Amino acid sequence: MAATITASLDVMGGDKGAEVVIPGADLVLARRPDLRLRLFGDESAVVPWLARYPRVRDAARFEHTDVTVQMTDKPSQALRRGRWRSSMWRAIDAVKSGSADFVVSAGNTGALMAMAKFCLHGAAEIHRPAIAALWPTVRGESIMLDCGATIGADAESLFEYAVMGAALARALLGIERPRIGLLNIGVEEVKGLEQIRIAGQLLKEADLPYLTYAGFVEGDDIGQGVVDVVVTEGFAGNIALKTAEGTARQIASYLREAANRTPLARFGLLLARETLSGLMAKIDTRRVNGGVFLGLNGIVIKSHGGTDAEGFAAAIEVGYSMALSGVVAKINEDLSAYRLARSEADDGKIAKTGVKTGVM
Amino acid sequence: MAATITASLDVMGGDKGAEVVIPGADLVLARRPDLRLRLFGDESAVVPWLARYPRVRDAARFEHTDVTVQMTDKPSQALRRGRWRSSMWRAIDAVKSGSADFVVSAGNTGALMAMAKFCLHGAAEIHRPAIAALWPTVRGESIMLDCGATIGADAESLFEYAVMGAALARALLGIERPRIGLLNIGVEEVKGLEQIRIAGQLLKEADLPYLTYAGFVEGDDIGQGVVDVVVTEGFAGNIALKTAEGTARQIASYLREAANRTPLARFGLLLARETLSGLMAKIDTRRVNGGVFLGLNGIVIKSHGGTDAEGFAAAIEVGYSMALSGVVAKINEDLSAYRLARSEADDGKIAKTGVKTGVM
Repeated sequence: MAATITASLDVMGGDKGAEVVIPGADLVLARRPDLRLRLFGDESAVVPWLARYPRVRDAARFEHTDVTVQMTDKPSQALRRGRWRSSMWRAIDAVKSGSADFVVSAGNTGALMAMAKFCLHGAAEIHRPAIAALWPTVRGESIMLDCGATIGADAESLFEYAVMGAALARALLGIERPRIGLLNIGVEEVKGLEQIRIAGQLLKEADLPYLTYAGFVEGDDIGQGVVDVVVTEGFAGNIALKTAEGTARQIASYLREAANRTPLARFGLLLARETLSGLMAKIDTRRVNGGVFLGLNGIVIKSHGGTDAEGFAAAIEVGYSMALSGVVAKINEDLSAYRLARSEADDGKIAKTGVKTGVM
Repeated sequence: MAATITASLDVMGGDKGAEVVIPGADLVLARRPDLRLRLFGDESAVVPWLARYPRVRDAARFEHTDVTVQMTDKPSQALRRGRWRSSMWRAIDAVKSGSADFVVSAGNTGALMAMAKFCLHGAAEIHRPAIAALWPTVRGESIMLDCGATIGADAESLFEYAVMGAALARALLGIERPRIGLLNIGVEEVKGLEQIRIAGQLLKEADLPYLTYAGFVEGDDIGQGVVDVVVTEGFAGNIALKTAEGTARQIASYLREAANRTPLARFGLLLARETLSGLMAKIDTRRVNGGVFLGLNGIVIKSHGGTDAEGFAAAIEVGYSMALSGVVAKINEDLSAYRLARSEADDGKIAKTGVKTGVM
């Protein structure tokens, strides 16, 4: 790939700011020396770290910012205090102005979403944005969206999530025609919600060439990798994601506890430590770090606030892959082609009806 | 305890029917010889198992039924085919007629809920029923409801779930004043849903003596045991429960895989097998088997369809504890006392306003 990709980084975001962001960027540059960086943050916090990481310094254009969005700020507060001036806003604005291909922040999710909407605006073809997350499964990885950008999705939004998720699966997982499932429940007498059923019908009827609609999935299907993309409304999606993370953390703590119980167990687990560390890596949420904002005019990656350098590097890699594959443009093309086809089909129906009426 | 408790069992329910139900009942009788049983099922399936388990035969009154509700039946089909005549219906009806204290079925959840509603009716003080599940946490166990009985709970229903969950926590976990949390998300700009905020206000203002309202919790707090009772709407609750089960199953399969990777790992994990089997027991969904239907005029326990005898025994134990503690009556008392207090407070306000108006 000849074109240079530029990442815009909010160096002040997250629990540790520059201490994680700069070493994280350094890890990516070791693998991708062609990556260029735009860095935004307070110079007193950033400059000492740039001195320690010359590779980052050489690949970056750094700009000082006065204001830092706090992790505890409400989105409205963050917008009031931080618009135009904060490291977060300026990092997003670099994407808007075209001087960067994507932005990564480990800052306050609500503030990041509010600023990203305000600065980049929603993509023309998308009603409401979504947060997509990578989900480790027994088969590899799946994508789930929406993980909490928007509460209460209607059928049309769920349909859009499916198209966005398919484009993301192609970009990040390399799956040409991803399998899409709609998250539903199997208990209630009238199964699931009206809008989920309608979204399923829309997907079936649309018969899109770039995704395979695989029907409803339930919560326990996600980790089995039954589908490549799990589509759901944001409230349920956020609950599912957080619950899975919590369960993994819970089991990891059982495992540590088990290892400390008896000398024999300790010795045995020591012998098995390499395979177990492979297991822990699979449970590790750092590898599936944060979320991707979709449905905006630009690529915005949210890294976990509590992540380390490796996690932040993973988030940069996600943005890099998305920029390289032109996923934002692809989503808009896919949806506008679908809508054009649908409105032509509707016109056709009307025309046919017209002819019929004329003949009769 | 002098009073005899009688369990009504749908022997045909679940993937294996009598093969699991009868040995499960036998396990409970070994610990609780005073338990009495009412058994409903097809005699050709049940009688051979009774011959092999004389302890069950001696403690039981068995009645033959012609119709078995299938796991694939829709609730409406099950009601049409199985009302009055199926093992499931008859087992529930034994609770209604007062000849049993609770019913356990491993059959079709939707059918069981539909028949239970139809036969037992909703409790006077409850708007809509809920399914409660036991959830293993790093601190022990919590209760979550609703796990899928009802889609879309309003604030009043969430309040009722809290009161029901508190009574259940007292009965099953022995916690005098359980801590209650409302499941919410922390991402969306306007945090969570209107009805969750109102339910929180109702719980705060009610200041009930038998529960402590602990505010909002997120998905990753559940497994940490941050609260004793997690209250949520049924769609999100079902997704959360299934997702946690799926994640546990996923990690268990990683663990088995890890054990088979190298001889050294195999040997090491063999040495650690006792502590690891303790871990697996904690992950094991059998111990937290099925769900409890709340908000009906009777105790209905749903055991997992795929459970084994030990799991079915655990489900009987849950019903036994609930019957012993009189949880259904307690819930109705708690809610009617609350409503009386609230309507008196409202009258007081109106009276005061009246006086004021008079004075001015």
